[in-house]
Amino acid sequence: MGKTLVYPKKSPNTVNRYKHRATYDLGAIHSIINSSQVLHVSFNPGPDEPFPAILPMIGQMGSFDYPSARIDEPLDCYLHGYVSSRIMNLARSSEGDGLPICVAASKVDGLILSLTPNSHSYNYRSAILHGYATLVTDEAEKLWAMELITNSVVPDRWRNSRVPPDRAEMSSTVILKVTVVDGSGKIRDGGVGDERKDKDNAEVTGRIWTGVVPVWETFGEPIPSPENEIKEVPEHITSYVGRMNKENADYARSAVGIPLPAEEQH
Amino acid sequence: MGKTLVYPKKSPNTVNRYKHRATYDLGAIHSIINSSQVLHVSFNPGPDEPFPAILPMIGQMGSFDYPSARIDEPLDCYLHGYVSSRIMNLARSSEGDGLPICVAASKVDGLILSLTPNSHSYNYRSAILHGYATLVTDEAEKLWAMELITNSVVPDRWRNSRVPPDRAEMSSTVILKVTVVDGSGKIRDGGVGDERKDKDNAEVTGRIWTGVVPVWETFGEPIPSPENEIKEVPEHITSYVGRMNKENADYARSAVGIPLPAEEQH
Repeated sequence: MGKTLVYPKKSPNTVNRYKHRATYDLGAIHSIINSSQVLHVSFNPGPDEPFPAILPMIGQMGSFDYPSARIDEPLDCYLHGYVSSRIMNLARSSEGDGLPICVAASKVDGLILSLTPNSHSYNYRSAILHGYATLVTDEAEKLWAMELITNSVVPDRWRNSRVPPDRAEMSSTVILKVTVVDGSGKIRDGGVGDERKDKDNAEVTGRIWTGVVPVWETFGEPIPSPENEIKEVPEHITSYVGRMNKENADYARSAVGIPLPAEEQH
Repeated sequence: MGKTLVYPKKSPNTVNRYKHRATYDLGAIHSIINSSQVLHVSFNPGPDEPFPAILPMIGQMGSFDYPSARIDEPLDCYLHGYVSSRIMNLARSSEGDGLPICVAASKVDGLILSLTPNSHSYNYRSAILHGYATLVTDEAEKLWAMELITNSVVPDRWRNSRVPPDRAEMSSTVILKVTVVDGSGKIRDGGVGDERKDKDNAEVTGRIWTGVVPVWETFGEPIPSPENEIKEVPEHITSYVGRMNKENADYARSAVGIPLPAEEQH
């Protein structure tokens, strides 16, 4: 029932490209990050501020130097925020390796409703990365990262929009590159896990329903804007909506690990 | 199209109970926190650690001292984690007001697909709180917080499970109380927002679809555990699943602010 995933200790992810190939953990951690629409990015605003800050940002794992790198190979994390000038200024002015940050992503896959409050839980997938953030200044890398991030909203959206960005758009866009130092993930799946003392108590099992409510993210029918002139919703959007609705529901249900009633199987 | 919400500057949330009554911003920020199944909690692990840490945790806003406090009044944030002994030990050993932390919650409500990559966005709701975390040691407050948090998984679940927790369960449960110092929120809603230069370009508008894909969290059919002995899924679960599925879909669609085609209205 579930597992904890970790990056290799102090993985120097720029030294040896093939060192971690086939490291399953990197693939699982990177996949959680890449399939999360929002990442939570934490940093320290300054020496006089007691509280770390958290910003919701959009981001993706990728390798500009090795664009063919697989999801389970060492990758960088590229972030495009609802630009808080604060994190951008901190990254711009940071000395040494960059601004130390933490990137987190979590998904809930199910509500675990068991006999006692203490054994209640969620099925979920979560991942965190630690790394140093710097501003991407190379124009080619910036353009590449903008395409990577746009296509994370809807695959293939980049070339189905008005590109390339003009000079003003390029200069108003800020992309952070996070050089990953370490990371970890956790996946909880399965059903309820009650203790023997409660499972053997007929008074308790006779009145309390136990099971799992699967939870997933649904994409609704695309709603055209009033100015839209294209009659049909394009295939790159409809196919993504259809695929994600199936994949998300399938994952949440199969994570429970309990055979579904016949009419629910598909 | 959207708004930024802020706590009153340096609100001393214990001094004057009625001071902020009817402060809409507190209500909106607290509602985002309370309707999020996972909160991201950031803290600094120690002076020698460059990176802030982020933990996914379950939590709820509430007031033990004034249990009848409304959602738009000053409240504390109670957290029940997948217990990392690290944050609990830090909170236990912290001097002064407690461990400085940041609590964040974000929901995506829609994909904004516009003419250019730069004008792509999400409809979303996000909130953050800054505050000092301490361990709840009072047994009555701890029990009250456990009920509050259990009922945030499914309303009314507490009294539909085996309660009260026994001595071992009470001592193995750790609850953090966050005394909130300040907070803020951001809501983005509406449709696409393109620039005049693109909207007036027939070559662009003639080939690029624009609109919004609504996104929401769906709860599936409850799946009974193999050991479950109750034939019918209880009403406190079915009514919650039904209500949330309707409310979530309705919010994501209505946030777009574009009249839906007739057959989609309800």
